Amino acid sequence: MKYNIKHLKEGSVTSAKGFMADGVHVGLRYNKKDVGMIYSEVPAVAAAVYTLNKFIAAPNIVTKESVNAERTLQAVVVNSACANACTGKRGMDDAVIMRRLAAEKYDIPEHYVGVASTGVIGEFLNMEKIAKGIREVAPEATTEGAKSFEKAIMTTDLIEKYTGYEAEIDGVKVTIGGCCKGSGMIHPNMATMLGFITTDANVDKDALQRAFSKITDISFNQITVDGETSTNDMVLLMANGMAGNNLLSEDHPQWDVFYTMLRKTSEDLAKSIAKDGEGATKLIEVKVKGAKNDADARAISKKIVGSSLVKTAVYGNDANWGRIVSAAGHSTADIDPSKVDVILGDQYMLKNSEVQPFDEEAAKEYLKSDTVYIEVNFHLGKGEATAWGCDLTYKYIEINASYRS
Amino acid sequence: MKYNIKHLKEGSVTSAKGFMADGVHVGLRYNKKDVGMIYSEVPAVAAAVYTLNKFIAAPNIVTKESVNAERTLQAVVVNSACANACTGKRGMDDAVIMRRLAAEKYDIPEHYVGVASTGVIGEFLNMEKIAKGIREVAPEATTEGAKSFEKAIMTTDLIEKYTGYEAEIDGVKVTIGGCCKGSGMIHPNMATMLGFITTDANVDKDALQRAFSKITDISFNQITVDGETSTNDMVLLMANGMAGNNLLSEDHPQWDVFYTMLRKTSEDLAKSIAKDGEGATKLIEVKVKGAKNDADARAISKKIVGSSLVKTAVYGNDANWGRIVSAAGHSTADIDPSKVDVILGDQYMLKNSEVQPFDEEAAKEYLKSDTVYIEVNFHLGKGEATAWGCDLTYKYIEINASYRS
Repeated sequence: MKYNIKHLKEGSVTSAKGFMADGVHVGLRYNKKDVGMIYSEVPAVAAAVYTLNKFIAAPNIVTKESVNAERTLQAVVVNSACANACTGKRGMDDAVIMRRLAAEKYDIPEHYVGVASTGVIGEFLNMEKIAKGIREVAPEATTEGAKSFEKAIMTTDLIEKYTGYEAEIDGVKVTIGGCCKGSGMIHPNMATMLGFITTDANVDKDALQRAFSKITDISFNQITVDGETSTNDMVLLMANGMAGNNLLSEDHPQWDVFYTMLRKTSEDLAKSIAKDGEGATKLIEVKVKGAKNDADARAISKKIVGSSLVKTAVYGNDANWGRIVSAAGHSTADIDPSKVDVILGDQYMLKNSEVQPFDEEAAKEYLKSDTVYIEVNFHLGKGEATAWGCDLTYKYIEINASYRS
Repeated sequence: MKYNIKHLKEGSVTSAKGFMADGVHVGLRYNKKDVGMIYSEVPAVAAAVYTLNKFIAAPNIVTKESVNAERTLQAVVVNSACANACTGKRGMDDAVIMRRLAAEKYDIPEHYVGVASTGVIGEFLNMEKIAKGIREVAPEATTEGAKSFEKAIMTTDLIEKYTGYEAEIDGVKVTIGGCCKGSGMIHPNMATMLGFITTDANVDKDALQRAFSKITDISFNQITVDGETSTNDMVLLMANGMAGNNLLSEDHPQWDVFYTMLRKTSEDLAKSIAKDGEGATKLIEVKVKGAKNDADARAISKKIVGSSLVKTAVYGNDANWGRIVSAAGHSTADIDPSKVDVILGDQYMLKNSEVQPFDEEAAKEYLKSDTVYIEVNFHLGKGEATAWGCDLTYKYIEINASYRS
């Protein structure tokens, strides 16, 4: 790897120095863990991205307030089963109380605490159980602690989603790790995605937010399961500086090392959500090249990977490239329909907008793989982007058409 | 009805004076009719709307050229089974030949002919069979002729889609009728929607196109089955003036009568496509009120009716209003999340953004109806719009995941 960055097989939110985590079961749901906490030994520089849904949930508003105060967080408390969204004034009060209880537990300022919720929209939090959870969680700097946290934030997720990397910066070991939940805003009223990334790197506040915003656009914002943006989406990044490297910002000679670690961590987590998209049997990766610019490439790639027709064709192992072209043409981006290439796996379906003969059977076999790669080149400019999604299956309908109970 | 406009139970493209139609089977597909023709005794003023897909198909380009020449059409030839899209130069030549053959059959200028195709993308037309079809069609001014045409343009449609109205203008009877095909761009590589509307009204060219563009935005452009826009979408409107009314334009005292007839015709056809959306078991009608403006209302209503989560919830008879709110919040329109009403059927789910207690069982029963009505009021302005769609079912996956053959 270019920067000699090492992937950590068991990477998680507790991989970085000074970070602890835990999750407990307090009965917000039948038998799964439902309240989780991440705690840093020392205050950490914080960066965040929030849902663009206009019905932003109370916990997101409260966390935004915390982060904006000093861009410093030391603890994050999360619950599953209830999203505390569309809950009006009482919901806001509950989110504030949830934050206060966590702050009191650690005797830290309230604005050092972030809160996140995921679950049913339009229902109120059971504050007794939330309080019990905050009392009982005992974060520890172990993989077990991270696993408990990962379990506590899952909703319809079938697998825990975690990753981590380490590299040397200024001669010291810098570690980053994270976890997330989400598999489409799918199960009745369940909210989409929460992500938590921790690093012991010593990073400048502004540089961290700039990098994180940029990376979110090419990772978390490039996945789609069902085209829905939930009321509770949030990704939090905490950097506590305990690695002891010199302050990192764009002009640090090894900035690119840290930037790449953060990008890889975000991309791993984003892809893990797409792959676990609900009902999904395979990951679809769409690479767009030769677009007018990167923004166009992002729009087109996401349009293709989000097309119900492309998704069902992939599920049906149908090399149905006409749907790929049609989805691309349906996006807002500039394209010249007269010089487009479409590649499925390694076979050209369309070259310079002329139909190519291809091996249907080989294509059908290829489509049975875990990951299906689609490449579209518009030969217009240098714009490139990748988007990730999943196939659309009977299981998606089954899960989402099932009655809430 | 306000203008004393009469709905014609058997309204069709041959209802208006001077219009004839037919459809024949020439083997483009196994046993269904596959080539259709509409012919007007006299040249007719033409208005049209075309797909916004950037991979616009050859027949659409050729028809656009015809209409733009004089905005006059006398014949329209249509084939199913092959879309003649993404077929490069040869596809363009074929569409031009198809137009010429129809022009020669009736000895009219080539630019008096419109052509349309629907079917598989990326395959070439069998011109021998197309020629045979153009030779064999024998349009007649009967309901049978219209039915033959309706059958010839169907792809995955389960039912023929037709409507018509008549009213008195300037003391003479003016008739309008139409048909369309489309049930989502769904069957492997099948293209979405074609619409044909004929009227014997005497209408000014510019006024006709203005009215048709305006009406398309609130009818055909307000339906969605799977959010896809095909390469071949087109709606053609022909007005041959044989009713003998005075020239209609916005300043004619009875302009509103004609405008309303055209709107109703377009709305009927649009809704019939949504209702026959593939795999659909019910029609979903979403009415948005109190938006900042009509454009916002159109965007929000279409976002809601197009949401996979709303569509699956409706299929599952699940009064899952959280999904409606989330979809609305996900649209580009301005909204104030603090004062929103959501009504399902006649029950409030959300009022002034506060959760309302409602009868789950009654809601579940209501969701079993053929047409599900959802109303969202944002209390922001006077913006209103309605959008139509259908539920998302196992059948949709079955049809679209099935291999092309």
